[in-house]
Amino acid sequence: MTDRVLGVLGGMGPLASAEFMRQLTLLTPAERDQDHIPAVLWSDPRVPDRNAARRGTGPDPLPILLRGIRGLEAAGCGAIAIPCNTAHGWIDGMRAATRLPILHIVEAAAEALRRQGIGPGTIGVMGTAATLAMGLYQDGLRDGGWDVIAPDAAEMARLVTPAIELVKANRVNESHAPLAEAARLLTARGARAVVLGCTEIPLGIAAGPAPPFPVVDTIEALARASIRWAREDARLPETAEV
Amino acid sequence: MTDRVLGVLGGMGPLASAEFMRQLTLLTPAERDQDHIPAVLWSDPRVPDRNAARRGTGPDPLPILLRGIRGLEAAGCGAIAIPCNTAHGWIDGMRAATRLPILHIVEAAAEALRRQGIGPGTIGVMGTAATLAMGLYQDGLRDGGWDVIAPDAAEMARLVTPAIELVKANRVNESHAPLAEAARLLTARGARAVVLGCTEIPLGIAAGPAPPFPVVDTIEALARASIRWAREDARLPETAEV
Repeated sequence: MTDRVLGVLGGMGPLASAEFMRQLTLLTPAERDQDHIPAVLWSDPRVPDRNAARRGTGPDPLPILLRGIRGLEAAGCGAIAIPCNTAHGWIDGMRAATRLPILHIVEAAAEALRRQGIGPGTIGVMGTAATLAMGLYQDGLRDGGWDVIAPDAAEMARLVTPAIELVKANRVNESHAPLAEAARLLTARGARAVVLGCTEIPLGIAAGPAPPFPVVDTIEALARASIRWAREDARLPETAEV
Repeated sequence: MTDRVLGVLGGMGPLASAEFMRQLTLLTPAERDQDHIPAVLWSDPRVPDRNAARRGTGPDPLPILLRGIRGLEAAGCGAIAIPCNTAHGWIDGMRAATRLPILHIVEAAAEALRRQGIGPGTIGVMGTAATLAMGLYQDGLRDGGWDVIAPDAAEMARLVTPAIELVKANRVNESHAPLAEAARLLTARGARAVVLGCTEIPLGIAAGPAPPFPVVDTIEALARASIRWAREDARLPETAEV
């Protein structure tokens, strides 16, 4: 039982947010409703396209992201998780605008690599074009000793980008084959594991046979980091508020 | 594209709320994130146990339900969906306390029966002891010409109640067999269809082979009613707010 309320800035996309809520629940040790973690999911799919913004062809998503953060603050949340990798490209602007801690999805992925026993070396990262261009994983994993390789431009155009769009259009099953193929190509180039660094990607990968190599599901990784945050105060006395 | 924001009063249980968000997404015609329905999920598993309250052995959940409604109002939501059948036993108190419309899950189930072509006659309803004792479905379906039969006390104690508790404890797979058996017993007594009138029940039923008779998934039914509400203003001019 915790009185920490998790804020989830979501809707990017909404299916990934729903899956985040599912994993947050299933990964929490619980015997009854009241053992689960209180959370508010701000699911706003209207956040302007993060890839277009990065390319300079669409509006800045930061104002709408901050609107969500204001809503989560007003709801009494104590920390924020964002089940969208690309949105982390705007994390400095978000952190500057709130006193709430924002759990970083790349740090959660690094923790998952360690948990799975994937030591320093070459790993693959699949993500949106913006996530890869901003170097979120290249920069975030360097200190842990991991060298990041990513799909090349042709693989992005043929496999990864269209598959992410399929998931956002509810065509999840169709996304499996191209995503599995892109991941396999990374292992063929030496990746010992593949980080599914866009929250649409684990949905597509899960829609077919499991890959025969280690993968990091960034939805699950962020859910585990969120549970750890919620449980940090578990030994404090319970407040009067139920 | 809609600017109507759906409020979801959830966490009862949290896995059912996550599934509601998943179905809300998958049932919405969409090509990209921005086509999906904005929503705020207030997932508060700390709401006091509705069955204990109904038996008079636990605190009244209404104050905590109203705290959630206040939060959804503050977030700018335009209507409220509650993916918990039992909580509808307190709907009069909730409706008296908010100007927002609350979409009724029993009305959504009736609409699903009609959509599936299940005309007047005997239907089965599975739910919590409190839902059945309060007559939510017996009263709510009578005007449509449906006669409701429900599991007897022994079936509730042996099959339905423990299975609902298994889902809330994340032991979804184990809940399938008892729930499927309870549903089958209703059809053996003449039910032409079975309403899964507790949002944990469709999760358990989905964890095994599909039943060989029509069922109404009240999570899906409420998601469809929510999408209908969100789309009602689709032909109005778009506002300037993205």
